[in-house]
Parts: sequence; C-alpha cells; structure tokens
Amino acid sequence: MIGRITSRLQDFFATKNDLLILTTSGSGGMEAAVVNTLSPGDKVLAVSIGSFGDRFAEIAKIYGADVQKLSFEWGTAADPDEIRKALSADSFKAVLVTHNETSTGITNDLAAIAKAVHEFDPSTRSGQGVLLIVDAVSSMGSMPVETDAWGLDVVVSGSQKGWMVPPGLAMVAMSQKAWEASAQATMPRFYFDLARAKDFLKRGQTPWTPAVSLFYGMDMALETLARDGKEAVFERHRQFGQQTRDGVKAMGLRLFADERYASNTVTAVRTPDGVEANQLRRLVQQDFNVVLAEGQGKLAGNVFRIGHLGYCSEKDIDDTLLALRETFAKLGHPVPIG
Amino acid sequence: MIGRITSRLQDFFATKNDLLILTTSGSGGMEAAVVNTLSPGDKVLAVSIGSFGDRFAEIAKIYGADVQKLSFEWGTAADPDEIRKALSADSFKAVLVTHNETSTGITNDLAAIAKAVHEFDPSTRSGQGVLLIVDAVSSMGSMPVETDAWGLDVVVSGSQKGWMVPPGLAMVAMSQKAWEASAQATMPRFYFDLARAKDFLKRGQTPWTPAVSLFYGMDMALETLARDGKEAVFERHRQFGQQTRDGVKAMGLRLFADERYASNTVTAVRTPDGVEANQLRRLVQQDFNVVLAEGQGKLAGNVFRIGHLGYCSEKDIDDTLLALRETFAKLGHPVPIG
Repeated sequence: MIGRITSRLQDFFATKNDLLILTTSGSGGMEAAVVNTLSPGDKVLAVSIGSFGDRFAEIAKIYGADVQKLSFEWGTAADPDEIRKALSADSFKAVLVTHNETSTGITNDLAAIAKAVHEFDPSTRSGQGVLLIVDAVSSMGSMPVETDAWGLDVVVSGSQKGWMVPPGLAMVAMSQKAWEASAQATMPRFYFDLARAKDFLKRGQTPWTPAVSLFYGMDMALETLARDGKEAVFERHRQFGQQTRDGVKAMGLRLFADERYASNTVTAVRTPDGVEANQLRRLVQQDFNVVLAEGQGKLAGNVFRIGHLGYCSEKDIDDTLLALRETFAKLGHPVPIG
Repeated sequence: MIGRITSRLQDFFATKNDLLILTTSGSGGMEAAVVNTLSPGDKVLAVSIGSFGDRFAEIAKIYGADVQKLSFEWGTAADPDEIRKALSADSFKAVLVTHNETSTGITNDLAAIAKAVHEFDPSTRSGQGVLLIVDAVSSMGSMPVETDAWGLDVVVSGSQKGWMVPPGLAMVAMSQKAWEASAQATMPRFYFDLARAKDFLKRGQTPWTPAVSLFYGMDMALETLARDGKEAVFERHRQFGQQTRDGVKAMGLRLFADERYASNTVTAVRTPDGVEANQLRRLVQQDFNVVLAEGQGKLAGNVFRIGHLGYCSEKDIDDTLLALRETFAKLGHPVPIG
C-alpha cells in the first residue's frame, strides 16, 4: 500500500524523486525539510509572505542556520527580482519559500521564483547548488507544482489539505541534490531522518510506527484523485477559487490578497468597518454549521478565511456565501447577493 | 475535547503533572522527552534491556548527549542495584529507562528503579536532581504506572497501545523538575517543543494541526476505559498475560522473557529448533488471520511475539493459541493443547 500511495503522490508532485511519508503534521514535514539538508551556520534565505513563511524561517533559526529573512507585505506575493537581488548580494546554501500562504490566501509564482534561484545556482560549476526548499503543504494536490521541471529540491505537503485525509501525515520529496546535501548536513535528526525513511521504504516499511488509519485514507483518496486525473482536479480548484472571489466581491467585500496572486485553495476576506471577524465566524458556525478560519497573527479580528480545497463542491461555496450574506444582515450590515 | 482527554490520561498516568499530546508516533514522543530536557554534553545513563532501550540511547546520542549505556541481557529485567552502582560512579543529569520492553516482553520494576535513582537525587540539597525519563509507550494504560508517587519526571506513551486507538499520537507527562530542566535545555526543538504545547493547551489548542481523527478516537476510548475503571483494566491485562504464558507453556514452548518480569501486554516466544519463526507467522496469518509480531533485531527468525493489550479478549488469546497449535502441526511439529 505504501508503494502505491508513494507512486500516486509522485504523479501529483510531478517528480521522479524519492518521496517519504512521515507521521506528523505539515509543520513536522517543514522541520524534516530543514534538518535533513542543512547544518548549523548555513546561510539561508527565508522568503516570507505570511505566517507560514515566518514559521519556516523560525525552524531554520532554531536549528542554528544563519537565516536572512526576505519578507513581503502580507497580502502580496514574493517578487522574484527581490530574491534575485538578495541572492546576488551574498552566498546562500538554501532558499526557503512558501508556495501557497494559507494565512493570507496568496499563491507565489513558484516557477518564476525557481527560475530566479537557479540563475544563482553554482551547480553548473561546482556540482552543489543553492537548495530550493518549498512548503507546498496547502497547494500540492490542488494546483500544479512541477517539482522536477522547476528544479525544486525539497517539497513538503500534508494529508489534510488537497488530499482530503485527516491531519497527521506529511510528505517530503527529495531531489538528488537534496540527498547530497543531506549526506553533509549536521543538524540533528532522528524521528524526522529522511535517509532512514528511504531505507525502510525499500522494504515497504517506515522506521517508526506509522499512522496506519491515515495511510488507508490516503490510499482511498488517491484512488479517487487518480480516477479524476490531476488536470481535472486542478481545474476544479481554479473554479472554486474564482467562484469564491466572484461571490465575495459581488457582496461588496474586499479580498485581502492581491488578486493577481489569489490562491485557489483559500480566500482571505477583510471584514468591513464595524464587523468583528471572529463574531461573524461564530455566528456563521452557530446558525449554518459552516466553519470559517480566523485571521492569523496580526490579521485576527479583521480577516476571515474560506477554505475551498479537497473535498469541496460548487454548492458548498454557494452555501457559504449565502450563510455569510444572512449573517452580515443579522449583524446590521446588509450586503448584496454574492 | 482536548481538556477531557488530557484529564482522563492524567488519571491513568496517576499524575497531576502537565500532560501534552503530540501528533507523532511513540518514537517521536521519546525524542520530545529527550530534546526538551537535555543539552548537548549532558551525561545520561541509558538503561537498555532491548531494542527500545537502545533507541532511547540513540536519540540522546544523536542530539549530542554524553550517553553511558547500561545494557542487560535481552530477556532479563534491569537490575536496580546495577543502576545504583552506575549512578554512584559518576554524576548524571538524567536516566533513560524503558518501562515495558516490547522487543523482549519484559516489564522492568519501575518502582524499584525509581527508588534507586532517587537515592542519588541531589535535589534535596540543590533543588535540581537526576531526571528520570521513562518510555512507558507500551505499558501506560495497561498496567499501573505511578508517575507522581514514584517520582517519574518525564513519561511517554502512544495511542496505539493500551489506548486502543490507531497510531499517530504520543503523550508526554512533565514534572515540575522536568520543566525546570526544560528552561535550561539547549537541544534544538520546534515541532516537539513541549513548552509551546503547554502554552497552546491553555486555550484548548495545539501549536500545529493535530491528528483530529485520532483525538476523536482517544476521546471515545478513554470514555470506555474510564467506565471500566483503571483497576479493572489493569486486572484484565494481568489475566491476559497469565493466560498467554500458561497457554504457551502448556504447548511445550519456551518464553523468551524471565518469567518473573514477563510483560502483561506482550509475550515473546522462542520457536523450537527446526521451526522458523517468520514462516510460522506467515502461515498463522494466512490460515487464521491472526497477526503475530516478528522478533526484533537479533531475535528475528527465532522469536515471535503475541500482543495482548487494549482491545483484546480471553477468546482472542484462545483463538491465537489454537491457531499456533494447528500451524505447528502443519509444520510437522505437533504440540500439546495450550
């Protein structure tokens, strides 16, 4: 079963690289990506456009990397030219980047970022280039990520996003360059040791007891996704994203994200003056059994988020928009039909 | 729900200490116990009676502890006097010990070991004593562990053992002394940071996305266990252990474990000359749908193991013994009725 799951995941990751499945949540997968490829003191450029970008930087820092943060205003995407500039100013071992930033509802242009990073990849001279380490927790399986074609060295996802499975599994794809880095990397690792996971996978096993029930879930979900075909799955998410944004704007609400980079898996919406986002969320859940996510970090109270990935339908989104409209009216802020 | 689960777990752990639930398997819980309380260079006495004791030592070593191993022959229990001797010969920051060693089917006399450790506890003088860090992954919830009364500083368990829930959650109890050590401990930690978990628990949350489906399972299982009462649960496991050992011996088979310390959750059995343990296991599974565990490490091929914990009944054990008898006959090694 683990072989079948792995191979179907590799299809969605668009990779021939090794892919390991860990019993942990997405943040544990991010930690695995860092500690398996880096050593204390390594210079790391951490690109951040929100709280998950901050988290990636924090992990690298805690394990002793020399982290330079390149932060962009929340609600905007990372600018590949700024990444180019930072990379030319210093010599970095790795770049950490979030593909889809759940906290703000932005999808970075990962292909363009990868292109910028690889311009500075000295691998053509020395055989050991800048590692591109990607948090694709909330994008993989819902939108195209071309691991091999874009040259992504480490790519992380998590079971509870597009895969439609409860939380508890993280997947990490490792390129040949990542394995070479791993052989030199001295950050300590035991539970998250990917070389050990690779060794056990040869026998269809995991080094530690796996979350068996979630593997069964992944097997079933991937069968469904494979039947639909990945292009159909990606198209479905494009439609979910568009439908949500169109509905929200028709209600006269403002998107938090720069719409050119708006995510197709999550939409962050600003609440109008006089409406407290968490009160709105409570009422929507109480009256309609629809759970909206809260604004993270500095956005708490001013933003709510609509998830539209995985096991989701056009009707789910319609129902959510209707629930919002009714609740705005109840709060004394009537809005047009979304 | 997390509050209710935590409080029912504290009852089984017999502790008023903080208890944190992590999305990881038992080995991740063991790593959390080490990295939250120790610093590189700390002298650690790692008591090992099998492969899980070896694993605990390995974790501490990988994270830079100065590990002295005190190993006992597989199939025997740790001798508290030997621990006393080792502790008097040097100054240790912590002792790592396995309560129930799954690989050999031995339960250490943890009360006696704790007594030996605390004789060398300088806390009565300096306020900071030897930390006693316990792997109770496969005992907690099935046999008595008196966390507070025995003075256990860090105690780890895992959802898939006596708790009857699929794998994927580890629980870690931390004493006040363990928290004080934690404040000084410099081993790096992010995903397994227990102080962060404690902070989020105050709000009924976890720092990272939890394995939600397994939390629902724990909630249901603990309701059942609380209804039975922990004394009844422990007595049931005493009977399972006795029934299994009596049956195995009546078939003329030899227990691997020193019977004075034989575990009530798992029984390791030596195969007689001429019977390959893994062939036996395959046939038992194929013909009777009964899964026996393989011998771990150096025991592979000569030992099989019967698990009898959690969701288990007298009839399950009878059926297993019958399946074994039929399979021994099929292999040309008839044995008496067990």
